[in-house]
Amino acid sequence: METQHSGPAPYRRRVQYYETDQMGVVHHSNYIRWFAEARTDFMRQIGAGYRDLEGLGLQIPVVGVSCAYKTPALFDETFVVETRLVSFNGVRICYRYEVRSQERGALLAEGESEHCFLDPRTGLPQDLKKRSPEHYAAMIQLLPKQDNV
Amino acid sequence: METQHSGPAPYRRRVQYYETDQMGVVHHSNYIRWFAEARTDFMRQIGAGYRDLEGLGLQIPVVGVSCAYKTPALFDETFVVETRLVSFNGVRICYRYEVRSQERGALLAEGESEHCFLDPRTGLPQDLKKRSPEHYAAMIQLLPKQDNV
Amino acid sequence: METQHSGPAPYRRRVQYYETDQMGVVHHSNYIRWFAEARTDFMRQIGAGYRDLEGLGLQIPVVGVSCAYKTPALFDETFVVETRLVSFNGVRICYRYEVRSQERGALLAEGESEHCFLDPRTGLPQDLKKRSPEHYAAMIQLLPKQDNV
Amino acid sequence: METQHSGPAPYRRRVQYYETDQMGVVHHSNYIRWFAEARTDFMRQIGAGYRDLEGLGLQIPVVGVSCAYKTPALFDETFVVETRLVSFNGVRICYRYEVRSQERGALLAEGESEHCFLDPRTGLPQDLKKRSPEHYAAMIQLLPKQDNV
Repeated sequence: METQHSGPAPYRRRVQYYETDQMGVVHHSNYIRWFAEARTDFMRQIGAGYRDLEGLGLQIPVVGVSCAYKTPALFDETFVVETRLVSFNGVRICYRYEVRSQERGALLAEGESEHCFLDPRTGLPQDLKKRSPEHYAAMIQLLPKQDNV
Repeated sequence: METQHSGPAPYRRRVQYYETDQMGVVHHSNYIRWFAEARTDFMRQIGAGYRDLEGLGLQIPVVGVSCAYKTPALFDETFVVETRLVSFNGVRICYRYEVRSQERGALLAEGESEHCFLDPRTGLPQDLKKRSPEHYAAMIQLLPKQDNV
Repeated sequence: METQHSGPAPYRRRVQYYETDQMGVVHHSNYIRWFAEARTDFMRQIGAGYRDLEGLGLQIPVVGVSCAYKTPALFDETFVVETRLVSFNGVRICYRYEVRSQERGALLAEGESEHCFLDPRTGLPQDLKKRSPEHYAAMIQLLPKQDNV
Repeated sequence: METQHSGPAPYRRRVQYYETDQMGVVHHSNYIRWFAEARTDFMRQIGAGYRDLEGLGLQIPVVGVSCAYKTPALFDETFVVETRLVSFNGVRICYRYEVRSQERGALLAEGESEHCFLDPRTGLPQDLKKRSPEHYAAMIQLLPKQDNV
């Protein structure tokens, strides 16, 4: 019998009016912000919050992002973002997101983002394993099983 | 001897203060908005502005978007977006963007977006060739040569 | 013995990274959005949600807004908005907001917004008392005592 | 015969799609950003750009802002912001804005913002007259005549 590693709870909040556009749905640029909100929440839940990491002198800029739009999100509905760690080697990290409507169940969008750990003073990539082994450990255990062996 | 088809002029404007974040550079979500600004300008230049197309009862929702971040954009500098039509079959359309710093010349980001033409009343995809042959013609001629034969 | 009319619960959420600017604090424009978020939440709590009112064919555009900035809000902290109905006559409505840092207790900002009820088809002001007596009643009871006599 | 001191040119740009909301008009929070854009442009034109002032170790946070909404701005139209210096004593500065539609001529919104000059290291107000006499001089001459005697 296997135990499923659950990971952090999904991120959810209501769609704001200023996030809609004159098509009557959420403007597509906002999903990139939702990914960022969900990622920040994910990191906070595992004890590796952005504020902590910035306190250690680390920044985590975005290297790339992609999003596929499935169903338009509507004002006032609650969206739910499931965030998963796709890959992580201490320096580079990739997340995958699924955004669903809580009320309708529909998949609204899905996407990925890639990041690296950086020292803002030098601009050089940093290995989290060396800079903060505890944060590294907290993250590495959330990798999918096949990458975690 | 061949004449190079130049296409619409690049889109450019200054980076606004509210587009920066506490890393001291432009927040990555804004580049998706810059793509949208550049695309809207591109379409306007070729006589197929969004306002015209919406007037014809057409919407052009985003199906997917991706962006690779190269060099952080800075407050007050002018960014320049070169937009190119990558593919177009009347129903689906794909654009490619290159964002550069006017002052520094550096490539800031590059990405793509994919869209479809839609009738908002029915939610069904529309063929621009049928709905507006002139707009279709204006766009098809901007395709790269190999796709245009 | 006096009973305190409590009104809806305050609105609270964390500050997002994309809401900060290169001063290292929240950009001032976002407080206007926070007012809107808090107001939407306030209305939902009293059973007069924007979605319901729009369903009745009513819009509630902003006529004016003001904000005084006291202490800069910081990334990742939780802000708390207390919203109060200042005046309401069925057609025009004025809210007052106080934004505090949950962690620091500090007053971050305070402000007001004024709105009217409108029929978007005619552009004419609407009296909520006539268009929806129940919603009118839910709101009028939240007025401060001296205005409510 | 009198010469009219004209001051910096108005700021203008097109309304972006992501600035509209599902009412089909520009969301009211964006006007606060338009004020900021116009102010930044105004300061740049008189040789006192934000980048220069930040380079001198000065920040110019917003102390207060207000906006009265007159006519909703529409997607794709060009808005024009006239910015005027209302008061300035070296430490505190107040601007007034009028936003018009270039196509329709209509007054879209008007408002004010108040700011102070600050040293971000100490958090203390700064007198521009002492910190940068040339920038002070460039600004003081733009005050309305009655305040400038």
